[in-house]
Amino acid sequence: MNENMSNIPKNIKKDVLTRVKPTSDEQKHLFDVVDYLIKKINSNVSEMDLSGVSAQLVGSAARGTWLSGTHDLDIFILFPENTDVKYLEYYGLKIARKVAEEAENWQEQYAEHPYISLKFRGYDVDIVPCFRVQSASNIRSAVDRTPFHNKFVKENIKGLEDEVLILKQFMHGIGVYGSELKTRGFSGYFAELLIIHFGSFDNLLKSACNWSPGMVIDMMNHGQSEHDEPFVMIDPTDPGRNVAAALSINKLAEFVDKSRSFFESPSLDFFFPEPITPLNDSEINNRLYLRNSSVVAIVFKTPDVVEDVFYPQLYKLESSVPTLLENHEFTVFSTGSWAGDYSVILLELLTSTLPNVKKHQGPPVWIHKHADNFKSKYKNSDYIFSMYIENGAYVVEKIRKYTDVKTLIESNLLTCSLGKHIKKTVEKGFFILENDEICRIKDPEFRKYLRRWL
Amino acid sequence: MNENMSNIPKNIKKDVLTRVKPTSDEQKHLFDVVDYLIKKINSNVSEMDLSGVSAQLVGSAARGTWLSGTHDLDIFILFPENTDVKYLEYYGLKIARKVAEEAENWQEQYAEHPYISLKFRGYDVDIVPCFRVQSASNIRSAVDRTPFHNKFVKENIKGLEDEVLILKQFMHGIGVYGSELKTRGFSGYFAELLIIHFGSFDNLLKSACNWSPGMVIDMMNHGQSEHDEPFVMIDPTDPGRNVAAALSINKLAEFVDKSRSFFESPSLDFFFPEPITPLNDSEINNRLYLRNSSVVAIVFKTPDVVEDVFYPQLYKLESSVPTLLENHEFTVFSTGSWAGDYSVILLELLTSTLPNVKKHQGPPVWIHKHADNFKSKYKNSDYIFSMYIENGAYVVEKIRKYTDVKTLIESNLLTCSLGKHIKKTVEKGFFILENDEICRIKDPEFRKYLRRWL
Repeated sequence: MNENMSNIPKNIKKDVLTRVKPTSDEQKHLFDVVDYLIKKINSNVSEMDLSGVSAQLVGSAARGTWLSGTHDLDIFILFPENTDVKYLEYYGLKIARKVAEEAENWQEQYAEHPYISLKFRGYDVDIVPCFRVQSASNIRSAVDRTPFHNKFVKENIKGLEDEVLILKQFMHGIGVYGSELKTRGFSGYFAELLIIHFGSFDNLLKSACNWSPGMVIDMMNHGQSEHDEPFVMIDPTDPGRNVAAALSINKLAEFVDKSRSFFESPSLDFFFPEPITPLNDSEINNRLYLRNSSVVAIVFKTPDVVEDVFYPQLYKLESSVPTLLENHEFTVFSTGSWAGDYSVILLELLTSTLPNVKKHQGPPVWIHKHADNFKSKYKNSDYIFSMYIENGAYVVEKIRKYTDVKTLIESNLLTCSLGKHIKKTVEKGFFILENDEICRIKDPEFRKYLRRWL
Repeated sequence: MNENMSNIPKNIKKDVLTRVKPTSDEQKHLFDVVDYLIKKINSNVSEMDLSGVSAQLVGSAARGTWLSGTHDLDIFILFPENTDVKYLEYYGLKIARKVAEEAENWQEQYAEHPYISLKFRGYDVDIVPCFRVQSASNIRSAVDRTPFHNKFVKENIKGLEDEVLILKQFMHGIGVYGSELKTRGFSGYFAELLIIHFGSFDNLLKSACNWSPGMVIDMMNHGQSEHDEPFVMIDPTDPGRNVAAALSINKLAEFVDKSRSFFESPSLDFFFPEPITPLNDSEINNRLYLRNSSVVAIVFKTPDVVEDVFYPQLYKLESSVPTLLENHEFTVFSTGSWAGDYSVILLELLTSTLPNVKKHQGPPVWIHKHADNFKSKYKNSDYIFSMYIENGAYVVEKIRKYTDVKTLIESNLLTCSLGKHIKKTVEKGFFILENDEICRIKDPEFRKYLRRWL
């Protein structure tokens, strides 16, 4: 397969485009909306008598790389580089609020600066103030970089827009699209750069079949810069930045794996997979019966905080709970996590109960002082079964403190490494479901997650 | 305790001697028997017209270091150094058989040469032919060394015999006496040398409190020789030999530990511990209930072979079964072994059953060739639950082959590392008892073993 890799059948790409390329009606409608909003902002700027301030469409809509059906617009209000921050924040919001007066609904959001999200004629519009800096290496706030990305892509993507659409849909279909900390996959800008670099979807996928961690792509030959992420794509507009910084090793691996599978048997299914249906109660019970393992779910209310703050905390908890359990001799062989109104940490164990007796290793007999301390500590203890010597070292058989996993978690969850917001909600309460008790979680999105996890 | 170590109360040593030092009647009786047997052998030598052949008493009886109540006599028939082996074996047996005519019963035994064990006037007598070599470094068979040991001890032990008796009884009481491969403790010769080297039981025990592996005692300053056992005592009669070669690290540790305990609270109990009583059925059930672990016993007929051949095989099996179980994800935290008519390997596990699902780690996605092989192997398998990517590597969830420990052992015991004789008997059959089923083993000696193990 590797040596004589065939090209991707033309009709597959054509069929994908038929479904994901915005029609001219869709395009016209979008640009009408964009024109209206930009004019609206600029007229407000004039009214407020602000100098050097102007609106600009950025993001995939600006580059002709948006997928049909997506209705996201990013409109930036650029202020002169030396504008005072307070001035930018004040007038940025003031202008955006003016626009919002005509919106179906809107709300203020907070990133580095406040901005406004609004719903307008069916579009989800972000109106974001930023500084118009000289170079992407000298940004004053994170969003200042976006206009540079926009410029670079627009100048280089001509004629390759369809390839970007196909790639984005492929990444979407296989579940690796999105650079938010929930997904840790590929951002839109990353996808665009990959197409610019490799020249086509086909070439990119052929290359991806042989990727491995340590890959570095440096389109502008900026020269080596130090990044330790699995994949490094030097930002052509800012040599110090890795565009792939958010990409997890697993999403990278999944992209590589699926690229190979796609060449093995190309199909539209990669782009448009069958929708996952929620697992019903009898399916859950059947799977539990077949696996015959011990499944534990830790459930708590999802804290009210943005996803990029929440998900790292959720994943941190997903990896710290097994450490707690393994320190108490429970063997966790699989974990999962999901969040809706409630958050769920899932654990699959070899067994959920352990004997009352627990073997505890003491010092070698030869370390006289430690040996004396150890012996006198346990000599008259009521909580040991026995003390003996094994391989030249003392061993006591103690009474195990936690013989079932539920009690262990209930008593110790707060000692795990918990993020600030999750800690706060867990302190207020959490509950533990075992095995078929997980059927009590009815959320269909959780049930869909279960179909893949269980 | 360490700094101001008190001396051992005089009355304890006196009380021990009262019980273990042979009375003059006992001594007279023993020497009458020895004289009779030696004369008998020598007269047979004369009758057979053998030149340079003579009988000699060796062992603790010859050195005045035998414990009251023991009735073991070792009488060697020494042949000239250049005797043909066949000649030695032929006449050695011929002479011994003549003596055996008067025995209550007797049998031929086989070590390097054949010899005869017999019961005579209540004594267990071994009559052993050997070569009278020039030096212990030039022995022709292992037993040729014994007369040299005998000579060395007799020349150096004068006045210290009682200290040897006390030490032997101490070692006996704490369970470290005996250098056979069953016990792997201290031999009588080793005990005698320790007393000669340290001058008294008290000095020896004081020193032992601070022993650690790597100890070397070289009484004759033979100079360093290469031994890697935990304890090295260079044989004063043969610089190439470690008298402590058979001593296991655990028996060494137990001697050190008990020496310390003895100084902490000296008592006759170390020398004459309470006899261990067999565990009865309700005690077994009670202990199993309290521990709430999974106990498994593998039972098979003990092969008909000498202990020094059998026990290493039993211990080998005791350590190889846990490896088998751990390879299949069972956690063994304690093992034991015992042998009477039946042999028993005991295992204590965290759990005796495991889930149907078993996680199997595959290659990293980046190792393209291995990844392809792995995927194609499991792609259409009916025996997997799922395949996914974790930390950049493939994982399959397979159907576990052995979900209970009994089936695992039944199907795979013969794949363990088994000694020749145990293999033969295990091939003919073995059975597995779980938890309270071990009550089916009624042998009181096993039940005594259980009292310490369970």
